[in-house]
Amino acid sequence: MSKEQVAVLRKAIDECDDALINLLLKRQQYVEQLVAYKKKSGDAIFVPEREQVIFEKIAKKAQGCGVDPGMAQDILQRIMRDSYARQANMEYPCATASPKSICVIGGNGQLGSLFVQQFARSGHRVSVLESDDWEDAEHLLKDLDLVMIAVPIHFTDEVIQRLSRLPSKTLLVDIASIKTQPIKRMLDVHSGPVLGLHPMFGPGLGHLARQLMLYCEGRQLESASWLLKQFELWGCYLRKVEPQQHDDVMSIVQALRHFVTFVAGWQLLESETDLDQLVNMSSPIYRMELALIGRLFAQHSDLYVDILLNASQGLQVLQQFGEIYQKALIWLEQGERELLIQQFQKVADYFGHWKEDFYQQSDTLLGAFRERI
Amino acid sequence: MSKEQVAVLRKAIDECDDALINLLLKRQQYVEQLVAYKKKSGDAIFVPEREQVIFEKIAKKAQGCGVDPGMAQDILQRIMRDSYARQANMEYPCATASPKSICVIGGNGQLGSLFVQQFARSGHRVSVLESDDWEDAEHLLKDLDLVMIAVPIHFTDEVIQRLSRLPSKTLLVDIASIKTQPIKRMLDVHSGPVLGLHPMFGPGLGHLARQLMLYCEGRQLESASWLLKQFELWGCYLRKVEPQQHDDVMSIVQALRHFVTFVAGWQLLESETDLDQLVNMSSPIYRMELALIGRLFAQHSDLYVDILLNASQGLQVLQQFGEIYQKALIWLEQGERELLIQQFQKVADYFGHWKEDFYQQSDTLLGAFRERI
Repeated sequence: MSKEQVAVLRKAIDECDDALINLLLKRQQYVEQLVAYKKKSGDAIFVPEREQVIFEKIAKKAQGCGVDPGMAQDILQRIMRDSYARQANMEYPCATASPKSICVIGGNGQLGSLFVQQFARSGHRVSVLESDDWEDAEHLLKDLDLVMIAVPIHFTDEVIQRLSRLPSKTLLVDIASIKTQPIKRMLDVHSGPVLGLHPMFGPGLGHLARQLMLYCEGRQLESASWLLKQFELWGCYLRKVEPQQHDDVMSIVQALRHFVTFVAGWQLLESETDLDQLVNMSSPIYRMELALIGRLFAQHSDLYVDILLNASQGLQVLQQFGEIYQKALIWLEQGERELLIQQFQKVADYFGHWKEDFYQQSDTLLGAFRERI
Repeated sequence: MSKEQVAVLRKAIDECDDALINLLLKRQQYVEQLVAYKKKSGDAIFVPEREQVIFEKIAKKAQGCGVDPGMAQDILQRIMRDSYARQANMEYPCATASPKSICVIGGNGQLGSLFVQQFARSGHRVSVLESDDWEDAEHLLKDLDLVMIAVPIHFTDEVIQRLSRLPSKTLLVDIASIKTQPIKRMLDVHSGPVLGLHPMFGPGLGHLARQLMLYCEGRQLESASWLLKQFELWGCYLRKVEPQQHDDVMSIVQALRHFVTFVAGWQLLESETDLDQLVNMSSPIYRMELALIGRLFAQHSDLYVDILLNASQGLQVLQQFGEIYQKALIWLEQGERELLIQQFQKVADYFGHWKEDFYQQSDTLLGAFRERI
């Protein structure tokens, strides 16, 4: 093969890339037409079953002609992610025959404003109540179908106390990351329907498609069914949980993880580690871990410290982690190789099938990450 | 729009997906022809500069016609990942005019066998020396250009001691995850060229394209230049580091991260956390962290415990982490909100521009992960 033939091949590859962009554009246009129709007809935009069919189809087609089916599915998923992001700037179907009147307390905050935007794009009437609007509260909170409390966690209790005069037809919901106490307080001050929400996502994406929303029944769950339907129309996955169970799990998911991450960042500072060197010498998996540590410190200190301070059973879990840490450290200092290996295997047994699932997941992640660093 | 028109649109979208597969197949075939040529001509298969050009080109083309450039680049990267994986099953260019004679000690192990395969596919003569071959060692280790030690870390010292009679022309290298001590030992027993390697990857991918290889000079670095060239032809990124600096960083990268992950798994076991519930109630970011914890326990307990036991400054770093953990816990128990927020901000300042970089990286990761769970 000559240099000229190499040039011909490179040109052919470039042309494939051009054709790829044209194809992406064409597909995007068809999807937009379909979405526009769905919005008019009130159909859900995100239909997991239809997606599943498309995924199976593309994998089968790929398999049949010698293209890696995993790659085909990954590419399709990336296309769909883009598609959700595009739809976020458009209107959503409305879950109710006539629009609802909604007030979001803290609706200028990051997550609050996402809900305000979503409600407005679905055709509801939304107002915002911020900390300096309490003088007008009586007026702002009159005749509402829904009041959503979206304030920082350490203001939640205080805000709930101010809502004792809500009409009993109003649905009262909060989105705090703990659930037992806010729901109890809402039930105390309000005689109407109460729902506890915990959105398992931040405001970053700008939409809620394929995101997880946990909800806890407070009172008259049936009065909240339109709201849950609306979340589904936005593409949310809903999952009903018990408040106590929720808080138990969150003490691990949030309090412990945040705390350990906080300490990890602090240790890097204390050891005067040179981050440039650290990054230079890191494997992709460590860079992923480092990215997750650094991520915490790019966010609001108040938010995280308050999550830690407010986690109902957080302290207990953190103390337990600290004790295990010291025990394992002593084993290590004493060179207890066998004890450490035995303990490792006990934990491996506890993880059961999940450890292989997690290994697979992290491998996929690694694959995606390796390309970006 | 009628139901029929919806069906027409859906069919058009399906046809786009079919066309996508055909395009992927075509591109793959062109790339294979190009790779076949490069292997004959001895050119590097992985050329970062050419990749950069392709990436910029596709982003520009996408931008120009209203397709998201980030998506276009992500898709191209996924295609390239597939392409590297395909090339791994083929032959590699040889870095030297005539093949080298190589022995990999521990060459039947996971990482050892990857090197054996890569050397063989590049046209070198490779033999393997395993633990029961030491009787034939004199024969196996005669007249070699390269001896690579690829045994578990706690055997490294013992194996080096057995190599005192290597001819002085033989290049001696090890791949242990600590570097100061093995290099010192190799220099003690061997009078010829010595190189310390630390591959920053596991055997999982089955190839070394775009993977990081750290190397430390031992003696006569110029005698190792063909080996470093060979790594580059496999697509490795090379980075030269000082042994002591390397071990300092690794005490954090490896010892501390593995230990904290180990304790995190142990805490889940100890708290009898129901993993199904935990997964059900987790945000994507926590599921990523959980995947990284579970990943550890899907691997060999000996390997990890030995990395912990052998980390040269590991204990000191682990003790420091433990002390900070206890200090932070006391602040939390005493409700020291201000102290915690101040400390958070000190760490945030320390991370500097990296915290935003890490936030971006983890966001990209989250995007990729959200689609898969």
